[in-house]
Amino acid sequence: MSPNTSSWIRSVGLLQPSLTDNTADADRLMAALRQELDTEAVAVDLDLLKRLPEAIRHWGYRVRCTVFRDRGGWVLTGIDRAETPRPALGLAVDLGTTRVVLLLIDLSTGRPIAESAIDNPQIAIGPDVLTRIHHAETAGGLKELNDLVITGLNGAIGALCRNSGHTPGDICVLAVAGNTAMTHLFLGLEPRWIIREPYIPVVNTPGVLRAADLGIGAGPFARVLVFPNIGSYFGGDLIAGILFSGLHRRHDTAILVDVGTNAEVVLGNEHWLIGCAGAAGPALEGGVTRMGMLAGPGVIDRVAIDPGSLAFDLHTIEEKTPRGICGSGVIDLAAQLFQAGMIDIRGKLVASKCGECLKEIDGTRHLIVVAAEQSATGADLTISQADLDSLIRSKAAMYAILETLTTTVGVHLNDLGTFFVAGTFGCFINPRSAITLGMLPDLPLDRYVPLGNSSLQGAAMVLTAESAFDEIGRIRDRITYLELNVNQDFMNRFSAAKFIPHTDLGRFPSALTS
Amino acid sequence: MSPNTSSWIRSVGLLQPSLTDNTADADRLMAALRQELDTEAVAVDLDLLKRLPEAIRHWGYRVRCTVFRDRGGWVLTGIDRAETPRPALGLAVDLGTTRVVLLLIDLSTGRPIAESAIDNPQIAIGPDVLTRIHHAETAGGLKELNDLVITGLNGAIGALCRNSGHTPGDICVLAVAGNTAMTHLFLGLEPRWIIREPYIPVVNTPGVLRAADLGIGAGPFARVLVFPNIGSYFGGDLIAGILFSGLHRRHDTAILVDVGTNAEVVLGNEHWLIGCAGAAGPALEGGVTRMGMLAGPGVIDRVAIDPGSLAFDLHTIEEKTPRGICGSGVIDLAAQLFQAGMIDIRGKLVASKCGECLKEIDGTRHLIVVAAEQSATGADLTISQADLDSLIRSKAAMYAILETLTTTVGVHLNDLGTFFVAGTFGCFINPRSAITLGMLPDLPLDRYVPLGNSSLQGAAMVLTAESAFDEIGRIRDRITYLELNVNQDFMNRFSAAKFIPHTDLGRFPSALTS
Repeated sequence: MSPNTSSWIRSVGLLQPSLTDNTADADRLMAALRQELDTEAVAVDLDLLKRLPEAIRHWGYRVRCTVFRDRGGWVLTGIDRAETPRPALGLAVDLGTTRVVLLLIDLSTGRPIAESAIDNPQIAIGPDVLTRIHHAETAGGLKELNDLVITGLNGAIGALCRNSGHTPGDICVLAVAGNTAMTHLFLGLEPRWIIREPYIPVVNTPGVLRAADLGIGAGPFARVLVFPNIGSYFGGDLIAGILFSGLHRRHDTAILVDVGTNAEVVLGNEHWLIGCAGAAGPALEGGVTRMGMLAGPGVIDRVAIDPGSLAFDLHTIEEKTPRGICGSGVIDLAAQLFQAGMIDIRGKLVASKCGECLKEIDGTRHLIVVAAEQSATGADLTISQADLDSLIRSKAAMYAILETLTTTVGVHLNDLGTFFVAGTFGCFINPRSAITLGMLPDLPLDRYVPLGNSSLQGAAMVLTAESAFDEIGRIRDRITYLELNVNQDFMNRFSAAKFIPHTDLGRFPSALTS
Repeated sequence: MSPNTSSWIRSVGLLQPSLTDNTADADRLMAALRQELDTEAVAVDLDLLKRLPEAIRHWGYRVRCTVFRDRGGWVLTGIDRAETPRPALGLAVDLGTTRVVLLLIDLSTGRPIAESAIDNPQIAIGPDVLTRIHHAETAGGLKELNDLVITGLNGAIGALCRNSGHTPGDICVLAVAGNTAMTHLFLGLEPRWIIREPYIPVVNTPGVLRAADLGIGAGPFARVLVFPNIGSYFGGDLIAGILFSGLHRRHDTAILVDVGTNAEVVLGNEHWLIGCAGAAGPALEGGVTRMGMLAGPGVIDRVAIDPGSLAFDLHTIEEKTPRGICGSGVIDLAAQLFQAGMIDIRGKLVASKCGECLKEIDGTRHLIVVAAEQSATGADLTISQADLDSLIRSKAAMYAILETLTTTVGVHLNDLGTFFVAGTFGCFINPRSAITLGMLPDLPLDRYVPLGNSSLQGAAMVLTAESAFDEIGRIRDRITYLELNVNQDFMNRFSAAKFIPHTDLGRFPSALTS
């Protein structure tokens, strides 16, 4: 029997059948696996049974099994000869509204092989969740949205494998983390009730499905773990993020903030978890993404403004000619504009300070960040008053959420030793800028821990450690969801936070000294 | 909440969702079912999830669920509104080599609705298991055999439903019992190793599968329980027979004999079960079916011969003009031929007694049972010396099996209070005739209990009682299989039993007096 190097790969040697041991091929293999996995039940697909008799005889009854968890038991996701040189692959997928990120993993070592990303092809229907859900309600709309994401994902899987010298057929297991709406569209489930009071998903715990049933081009017996959600606005991406952060295993209480399309926040420790999501409130609809774009070459991710000359010092990814600005760049920009006096405490552009950089388009003020002649697009890159208003609502909602959540459980924001910041924008939010705006609390900067794409990394964890599978369910079951729609305190706090940094300046001592 | 009248139908009422109870539709339903079924896991198909949100809102959150067992847990096989007038149906299938019998059941009452039977369409390939397995080894042969039985079954399901005013879409669960080879062809599994030493099936415990995966036209979420086997020659049909007979629940030791294509025997009680099957030995290959035909109008099922005149008194089913003879008719005929002196103790036709009824065809003696002018086929109905030789081998094998099995566990045949006789020929074997031939032991006739189609009835039990589901696994796990191929005692006993009734006449006292 070969040493087993991974939870999801188990090599077993079977006793050869004889007249005194006439156990069937499948039951012989299952008996070995049950012993190996210490389980009662191992499920096996009919089509795998069809290949089994010829295969195990050909392989001399020594079989490399790839397995995965499935409900209470296990499932066989593939078989090969014990010494096969073919890799067994896993694929972690961060299924974002805007961006879908794939991470290919070697199951035998747990190591990443290659990563890639595509725009979510559903952007062709609409950039945000709401537009897509409305489209899903039209005739054929849901199927169209489902086809888009599945076809797009299959293309991305093909390209990722091709570019790394692998084949999709060797993928035995996928772990997919996305927000609740994206998960529904991925599964072809009716998203209609997600956006209507009382905001009920079709399913909280989709569990483990056959890749073939979902139309995903992977190994013939591959399984797909779809991360569970807590509700319509608290998705599997955040469960994956909690898993990755380890929030649920800490002695001390910590907090995790995910500033993506929604603002999602979880507070807790090894004993309890409480979470809420901003899009459940009215403030973050559309969110900061309305003006931000995804990370990529030429995208502005850091901004500094000289307080004297008001000259912009822009940093772009790969230092290419600027073509847009990402979410974290917008936060940097707004913080710098405020410190330079170019926007006021309500986030309004100050004409006297902005001067020639201001222009009016369709009756709305825009600030030119990069003039057409310096931009990669050939047009001015601007931020509009509407964008800034949206940002103010977003940051106010974020702060009000943090305040409401901590107050609910009697924890003070300043007492939190660790403040995880996950970001699905691809650029990391600068906590200093977020504090300047009053989006995040005024803590010492070393308490802020960037997590990167925690959704993707959480999904990857399930492919590298069996224990992570069980943790997912425990995280989900332990979270208390705080509903903000019925929370008057939240609305009051939201109003108070709609100033930079806040109506209560005492909360932001560092703003006074900077 | 409606009263639940059956194990497989559970009506549940769900609390309506609200802002303070935002559990998803599926999880809400599952929670109700888990409580109702006292289980941890209820599986649900993705395609059922797709229908769920609209359905439960339309039905006011009162749902009739049809469920079934699946591995450790349960599975949802269909949903409808709580007060639906549509029946929930189950289908029991006896998947015989020669004949496929269907029994439609109302799951709400457990009562049979209608029964039908078709010839196994694989007869077009070959009448016996061996021919079909060899055909399965040719290119496309397995698929052809699988298509034949699935298409045939679908046609039969359609007709059975049509004729009884039902629709196949209301069938939520099927239970299929067949011998190991038929089960493999039904599942599309390679039967190659069933007939080759050491006789290993692909699978012993196929478990519960999706009807859709098997290509069976039933409800969209219907499940199929395929009865497990003990080995290549001890199939699920016999497990179903044991279930129906209750052998495994008796205090006293009893025996069950199934004289079908194979001779299968199980001995035991509530504590132990031991079984063996004749086709594992060389004697019964082809078996008595080579000359017998299926029950049906005009088929001879009972025979008497006047000892003086040697006139044949034939009874046919529905008293139609004779067109053939069924298995039990052949046993009657041979017993009567022996008692009339028309065959000798070796089963050879006695020319001096048979006289003009004898004719030679292709160098083999035939006895004319019905002359051409009295037969429905327009040709003589005959029994050949080869048929009789085959019957002698079959009856010798049956007796030798009974003797070997009882001797192995130290039970005397005469001590058995109950002797269940199952028959898949459709005609009941007359124990008196079987004793005359020395096929069955010389017990008082009232110890023989006919079971009819015990395979079909056992399959039906699973559709009417949840407890039967668990019993199947317990029966399978408890049976010791006695391998006859490596048993020299069996071969000796087989030789001694190749006379009518036996070399040891002392075993058949009633033969001396009849």
